Amino acid sequence: MKPFMDPDFLLQTEIAKHLFHEYAESLPIYDYHCHISPKEIYEDIHYENITQVWLYGDHYKWRIMRAVGTPEELITGSGSDYDKFLAYAKALSQAIGNPLYHWSHLELKHYFGIEETLSEKTAPLIWEKANAKLKDLSCRDLIRMSNVALVATTDDPIDDLQYHQLIAEEGTMSATVVPAFRPDRLVEITKPDFASYIQSLSAVVGYPVETLDQVEQAVYDRIAYFHARGGRISDHGLDYAPFEPASKEDVDAVFRKALGGATLTAKERDQYRTYLLILLAQEYEKHDWTMQLHMAAIRNVNSRLFNKLGPDVGNDAILDVHLAEKLGGLLDAMQAGGRLPKTILYSLNPNDNYTLLTIGGCFAGETAGRIQLGSAWWFNDHIDGMRQQLRTVANVGVLGQFIGMLTDSRSFLSYFRHEYFRRIVCDLVGNWVENGEYPQDEASLRDIITGICYNNAVRFFGIDLK
Amino acid sequence: MKPFMDPDFLLQTEIAKHLFHEYAESLPIYDYHCHISPKEIYEDIHYENITQVWLYGDHYKWRIMRAVGTPEELITGSGSDYDKFLAYAKALSQAIGNPLYHWSHLELKHYFGIEETLSEKTAPLIWEKANAKLKDLSCRDLIRMSNVALVATTDDPIDDLQYHQLIAEEGTMSATVVPAFRPDRLVEITKPDFASYIQSLSAVVGYPVETLDQVEQAVYDRIAYFHARGGRISDHGLDYAPFEPASKEDVDAVFRKALGGATLTAKERDQYRTYLLILLAQEYEKHDWTMQLHMAAIRNVNSRLFNKLGPDVGNDAILDVHLAEKLGGLLDAMQAGGRLPKTILYSLNPNDNYTLLTIGGCFAGETAGRIQLGSAWWFNDHIDGMRQQLRTVANVGVLGQFIGMLTDSRSFLSYFRHEYFRRIVCDLVGNWVENGEYPQDEASLRDIITGICYNNAVRFFGIDLK
Amino acid sequence: MKPFMDPDFLLQTEIAKHLFHEYAESLPIYDYHCHISPKEIYEDIHYENITQVWLYGDHYKWRIMRAVGTPEELITGSGSDYDKFLAYAKALSQAIGNPLYHWSHLELKHYFGIEETLSEKTAPLIWEKANAKLKDLSCRDLIRMSNVALVATTDDPIDDLQYHQLIAEEGTMSATVVPAFRPDRLVEITKPDFASYIQSLSAVVGYPVETLDQVEQAVYDRIAYFHARGGRISDHGLDYAPFEPASKEDVDAVFRKALGGATLTAKERDQYRTYLLILLAQEYEKHDWTMQLHMAAIRNVNSRLFNKLGPDVGNDAILDVHLAEKLGGLLDAMQAGGRLPKTILYSLNPNDNYTLLTIGGCFAGETAGRIQLGSAWWFNDHIDGMRQQLRTVANVGVLGQFIGMLTDSRSFLSYFRHEYFRRIVCDLVGNWVENGEYPQDEASLRDIITGICYNNAVRFFGIDLK
Repeated sequence: MKPFMDPDFLLQTEIAKHLFHEYAESLPIYDYHCHISPKEIYEDIHYENITQVWLYGDHYKWRIMRAVGTPEELITGSGSDYDKFLAYAKALSQAIGNPLYHWSHLELKHYFGIEETLSEKTAPLIWEKANAKLKDLSCRDLIRMSNVALVATTDDPIDDLQYHQLIAEEGTMSATVVPAFRPDRLVEITKPDFASYIQSLSAVVGYPVETLDQVEQAVYDRIAYFHARGGRISDHGLDYAPFEPASKEDVDAVFRKALGGATLTAKERDQYRTYLLILLAQEYEKHDWTMQLHMAAIRNVNSRLFNKLGPDVGNDAILDVHLAEKLGGLLDAMQAGGRLPKTILYSLNPNDNYTLLTIGGCFAGETAGRIQLGSAWWFNDHIDGMRQQLRTVANVGVLGQFIGMLTDSRSFLSYFRHEYFRRIVCDLVGNWVENGEYPQDEASLRDIITGICYNNAVRFFGIDLK
Repeated sequence: MKPFMDPDFLLQTEIAKHLFHEYAESLPIYDYHCHISPKEIYEDIHYENITQVWLYGDHYKWRIMRAVGTPEELITGSGSDYDKFLAYAKALSQAIGNPLYHWSHLELKHYFGIEETLSEKTAPLIWEKANAKLKDLSCRDLIRMSNVALVATTDDPIDDLQYHQLIAEEGTMSATVVPAFRPDRLVEITKPDFASYIQSLSAVVGYPVETLDQVEQAVYDRIAYFHARGGRISDHGLDYAPFEPASKEDVDAVFRKALGGATLTAKERDQYRTYLLILLAQEYEKHDWTMQLHMAAIRNVNSRLFNKLGPDVGNDAILDVHLAEKLGGLLDAMQAGGRLPKTILYSLNPNDNYTLLTIGGCFAGETAGRIQLGSAWWFNDHIDGMRQQLRTVANVGVLGQFIGMLTDSRSFLSYFRHEYFRRIVCDLVGNWVENGEYPQDEASLRDIITGICYNNAVRFFGIDLK
Repeated sequence: MKPFMDPDFLLQTEIAKHLFHEYAESLPIYDYHCHISPKEIYEDIHYENITQVWLYGDHYKWRIMRAVGTPEELITGSGSDYDKFLAYAKALSQAIGNPLYHWSHLELKHYFGIEETLSEKTAPLIWEKANAKLKDLSCRDLIRMSNVALVATTDDPIDDLQYHQLIAEEGTMSATVVPAFRPDRLVEITKPDFASYIQSLSAVVGYPVETLDQVEQAVYDRIAYFHARGGRISDHGLDYAPFEPASKEDVDAVFRKALGGATLTAKERDQYRTYLLILLAQEYEKHDWTMQLHMAAIRNVNSRLFNKLGPDVGNDAILDVHLAEKLGGLLDAMQAGGRLPKTILYSLNPNDNYTLLTIGGCFAGETAGRIQLGSAWWFNDHIDGMRQQLRTVANVGVLGQFIGMLTDSRSFLSYFRHEYFRRIVCDLVGNWVENGEYPQDEASLRDIITGICYNNAVRFFGIDLK
């Protein structure tokens, strides 16, 4: 029996252990998609206790606490930080097989030097130990300890990127920090705050945004603004891939209708979204940016919870929706003027992986790994989900081109998800070699492992690192 | 090589063997969903031969017999019981990897003491042995031998529950027997016999059921009736989760239209179904009942077979349908007045497991394990299906809260499906411990195993046991 | 560590090795579905170099070359054959886990006696070795070396089957070569060339085809024509299973409308397709043919690539579409007059396997294995895909009835996909025996293995072999 989470955790073969410890373990982290706050980085915030850094804002943990019946008071409510920590410890013991079980212990070990297993019994001691350690740790310390080379935050087009600017000017940050352009509020024309968002956009660009032409100009200006501040990545959150081509005149009319407060039909909504997405993709391509499409999430399912707590509180789920036909049409239209930007396709529904990868593969070519199936995302970010994603890429794509892992996290403690991923990659590759399914060719294996874990992403995104 | 189905069947590690033999094996069976007949229990029926108890009514077996080309005469027709048994033996030899292969041998061994492998060659001997044993076995003996603590049958709201009453009054039954409330005929407004069903309902409640108000009153009365007779569980069979909110007036009009024999539109059908399901769920919650939603079956696909033999003859299949959006809406509407009842979500389509679990997770909270992903159901009730269901719960939920297995069977010999399930659970958990993915913490492991195999269900349903 | 692709490649247990080497390895190949050219067989073509036989026309290989950024010139363009080979060698090294990695090395070994691993470094040597060997190999040699018993090509109803006739008359071919009837152009009424296709059909049958009655007569005549020339198999490529029943009059009007060049509605298209598919199925059944339905592909996704290179160039993907309800209706309608023809159901989307198998199972009976879930197809033709398909059949069907593998290939080097499949089958069955999940009954195991790998197909298709 292997000890619990020892240095060879998840590594079943000697060759897997070799690949991990020799090549993967010490590589820097290229975290090309996350939700941490540039303001917090700039201010280099400290935490009073582990609950603040671990449980505040972590809706993964909130969900398992709710599943075991923890009162909301001890999740998002007015309970004390210690009681919340204790409640999480109780929940975690029952979450056998859940990635939180592994992530939590990886984090306790690596950031706080804690080897004990977290449970109701050990919680008081771990609370003390972790908090003592936290006294000397700021968020930048956590980033430095994690050997992070790049952090790409997630930012609205109207964001002034002030903190990115300040971090850059200051110049002491160990990792490169770049913004990513996420224009969901510009694309989602039927959201109640769309008109007011457009007003804010107008204020930012300094001219009226009342016509589609002006939207286009604003898009160009804000992409240029982000580009000048290091932005090379965009991101879209979509329920499904819309594809409803329409004339510019018609889309202009839809835009004006929305600004006027009228209710749009589903078709009108998708006409506008299709137009905007194509426009954006072509502008990304001109700047050699990478476009990420995140699809198939359904948000804020429980309306009472939403009304009480707002979005991003563990109230989202996996949508089942057909993607192939419209996604194919959309990508095809995006490349009409030239070629697709570098693209990463994600679906929250693991059933979609083969479809996304084969649709994407139709647009491959010219540069290596141009179209990617994104790493196992959110509800798929566990051993099974990562294995399935990796095997899908291997089965119908080229695994040696995969750009690998991201945290997608709001926490400064999540970097060990990269280690988790790397162990799973090395184990998978090691098994193939062990079973005679790939030759024991050290140079090829090194290239594949270091590529997936770090080098491919560096090359793919093409961002200058410190 | 392991011997065929020895005492350590399906248990790959020492820790798995320990968990199964020490904790899981001897636990009673809590069979919270099945289709056995309370009349047969009350009458304590005997069988003349193994075909009667094994093949009559078992459409799982009928399907594999049809797949190997067995004439229908030897499946559901006028063939002799012995010839049918022999035909099944021939079919079974080819069904390598099918759960029937394992279930059949578990049943032969445990109920009849037969160690031989069933095949065309051994069938004559096994026929004699099993029939000799059956002489001394009634259906209650089979239940007692299986260490069953609870049986929840499946009953129509208009059922008078006479046999439940008689069993209770008699008081000699080893297991607790309770009814479950399955109002499909009340919900499925477009079925040809809907109007006549409503007439029967009216006769049972003793007042006219001609308006939606009267339907509501009848629902309240029948739930109260079931509750008084031990009913604590409801069950719904749905193609998909309908969600078409409408005013009470509109739904009342739809109901009257259906009673009048007019054809409803799909939208009208779903308006009525939505209204009824919300009404029922809220009434279940008031009584602290558990609501089961079984989705994504398509029934009676082969119309010739249906016309010849009727429903439930192995003529059903797995439906592919989108569930997330409407299921989310429906559950959200059900909780509007208070909270969701305890809920178990099942889809016959294994692709839906992640969606169901993440949708359900949005409504978790307050009490432990309130929303469950149901155990692998029907066409998923095999090693792969159960592993996938268990791993899904582990990956995005809390496996330690899972309420475990049910037979869903029409047979008194199916209780060994619980043993099959328990072996798979212990093997899965054992592998995690063996691989260092969960600590070897005896107390936690015992709680998890006994919880999933029995204790969680006892707590969840809250039914008084003998 | 096992050596790379040794004789026990993919065989994990002693019993698996025994089953493969004793029973599976030496069986002939029954290739009931492929796309090789009867003209090339008749002319017994030779190749100048390995690129011509290996890379020309193989869009599987093209896709991985595009994925690593190979210029199109070296894929389908004017690059030299050697440069193309070299480019493929470079791409392949990165395609760890891809079936092409294994297929390529199986082919190099078995046809060319090459034991080296293909990479950029070894490519020059392997190029020389393979080309030297190719000097003495025609396509018929490759077929003979592969121990092929039957080849079923894919042919249009208007094809005169001249080369099948010539091959038969010549009589020297080692394998039986039969045509398969693929009437996609007759069924796909909205394709731009439909009217001109009907004119060609009219020319072939020798009478006007201007009414639905005449279409029916043409169907009868061409099926009879194929039947007289050895045809016993049909094949359909469908996006989804259409089911839109309509009167003969209405369908006749739709047909005339299409001939007149008018645009059809989606409903009209499906009315015609439904009518034709039912008509065809019933005629297949009369002739005891086998009907294959290939579903859920989306074709020519990248329109620029399509405009440049046409169809079948690696520009297709996996469609996500609901199949159950309409497929059930269509199959039910097909059997209305009698019974379904022998049927093989394939979906390109692996999510559909359980649905297809359970829908198909509703129509089983009378003859053994009458309805089949097709072998893992195209993007699923890898270890995971084949295991999943086999386990699905085992879990909800009868694996001992499965008719096994086909190449679906345009190449004369693809027969080792059968070996790949057989290794996976033996490994799966071996694991069950090893783990005590099936008895070590030599006779049963032999029947199951030889059945799946060869005998079942011989019996199922009922085609006279040489």
